[in-house]
Amino acid sequence: MSKVDKTKFDNSWYKPGPYWKRTLWHFTSALLFRNPLFPFYGFKAALLRLFGATIGKNSNIKPGVNIKYPWFLSIGDNVWIGENVWIDNLAQVTLENGVTLSQGALLLTGNHDYKSEGFDLMVGEIYIKENAWIGAMAIVGPGVTVEENAILSLGSRTSKNLEANGIYEGVPAKFVKERIFSKK
Amino acid sequence: MSKVDKTKFDNSWYKPGPYWKRTLWHFTSALLFRNPLFPFYGFKAALLRLFGATIGKNSNIKPGVNIKYPWFLSIGDNVWIGENVWIDNLAQVTLENGVTLSQGALLLTGNHDYKSEGFDLMVGEIYIKENAWIGAMAIVGPGVTVEENAILSLGSRTSKNLEANGIYEGVPAKFVKERIFSKK
Amino acid sequence: MSKVDKTKFDNSWYKPGPYWKRTLWHFTSALLFRNPLFPFYGFKAALLRLFGATIGKNSNIKPGVNIKYPWFLSIGDNVWIGENVWIDNLAQVTLENGVTLSQGALLLTGNHDYKSEGFDLMVGEIYIKENAWIGAMAIVGPGVTVEENAILSLGSRTSKNLEANGIYEGVPAKFVKERIFSKK
Repeated sequence: MSKVDKTKFDNSWYKPGPYWKRTLWHFTSALLFRNPLFPFYGFKAALLRLFGATIGKNSNIKPGVNIKYPWFLSIGDNVWIGENVWIDNLAQVTLENGVTLSQGALLLTGNHDYKSEGFDLMVGEIYIKENAWIGAMAIVGPGVTVEENAILSLGSRTSKNLEANGIYEGVPAKFVKERIFSKK
Repeated sequence: MSKVDKTKFDNSWYKPGPYWKRTLWHFTSALLFRNPLFPFYGFKAALLRLFGATIGKNSNIKPGVNIKYPWFLSIGDNVWIGENVWIDNLAQVTLENGVTLSQGALLLTGNHDYKSEGFDLMVGEIYIKENAWIGAMAIVGPGVTVEENAILSLGSRTSKNLEANGIYEGVPAKFVKERIFSKK
Repeated sequence: MSKVDKTKFDNSWYKPGPYWKRTLWHFTSALLFRNPLFPFYGFKAALLRLFGATIGKNSNIKPGVNIKYPWFLSIGDNVWIGENVWIDNLAQVTLENGVTLSQGALLLTGNHDYKSEGFDLMVGEIYIKENAWIGAMAIVGPGVTVEENAILSLGSRTSKNLEANGIYEGVPAKFVKERIFSKK
């Protein structure tokens, strides 16, 4: 017999910001930010900053990007965010300098405690360090830290931290080899 | 030499409902139901019911959900359907009480007989039992039954039935461990 | 210490077509081609041809399909392209007669040289031969050739060539069994 009772779900502890602000962003995102008819990076960066995001220099955001709460987003310099990337940031997401999120990548910060009767909400921040690369359609789970230069390859998924200079592949992702840079 | 000849494809046996109804739903879905400018659950539930879906109490449907044919959908109480979930229900899909489909999950009911010359259409119903959880970006294939409390984890995919209280992971998904509930 | 410096990224060698043409297609795609309010195949095929695609007879393209550059696309006869398929063709993509791309499949032609200081762009053509089937939500990486009759199953991903009549599954995809046709 099931021991889950979702009527006991209680996320009243979770305070992602005032309702008016979340609602205003929801519609701004749907009408303008995610709209491929407004593909201009400067415009999108300005909208994100207006809603509280931090964004460095020379970054870029392609069309169709879905960001849950800009005020939980910090982006460094030279960060590239590909088409249809989904940053579902119920908690803080930090992308250091040089990070790349390729097309369709998903950063997921929300989770549920499947052991609890109320199927309780849990959130975990995501921290992606310098020059790490999250491949196209790859998925990063809640609470994950991706260290410098690490690569999560195309279509892979991790719910665990990735070590510096590691290349990871699979669902769940496993270490495959080291990222070796070419001699110049 | 190839033995497929798609000009012999014949799905005339498949009767998903009258053309006018499918067309009307297609446009209703595109203009209203999936449109993030109409995020209101009550409105979406009313549309689904109008087109023949069964929906229980205290359920919720987030923005961007894509449902093929509402008249092939039965939803219980306390069912949560996350953002951008895709229920591609060419055949009946049943979500019992307490089921959760997280963001971007896909329930797929259509298939092709790859052994046949005509690449014949096959459809299979999906049945998800009480309090099972289909994780974000996870995929459930045609004809699958997910038993009570089972979990298909983030980004995983199953084409086979999942047993009660099992936690499954991978592409294809394998049993990882049992879902143990906390003592209260 | 990181050896990536994306300010040295230089894709000036990459010439995907004149800016006006890419811009015009971007808006045509967003307003008309991908728009589910214009689901008519004949209209979509005409738009693609107008922008330089080659398309055979009896093919079909479902709603929500995302094509980067039509002038890098060649489609044979009896090709089916499912809902929300994403053909991210920075380089030529060829779909021979009878090819099927199921719902949400992704063909990806762009890559980065992760060994290079400038995170250099690399592109690779995708060639899918007669009657091969790319399953729903499956991913084909840059430079891949899929031989005749091969199948990449639901939610799988390949960055390597697939052999004729092989059925492949997993992330990364591995050979599972041979595609055997029924006797008539």
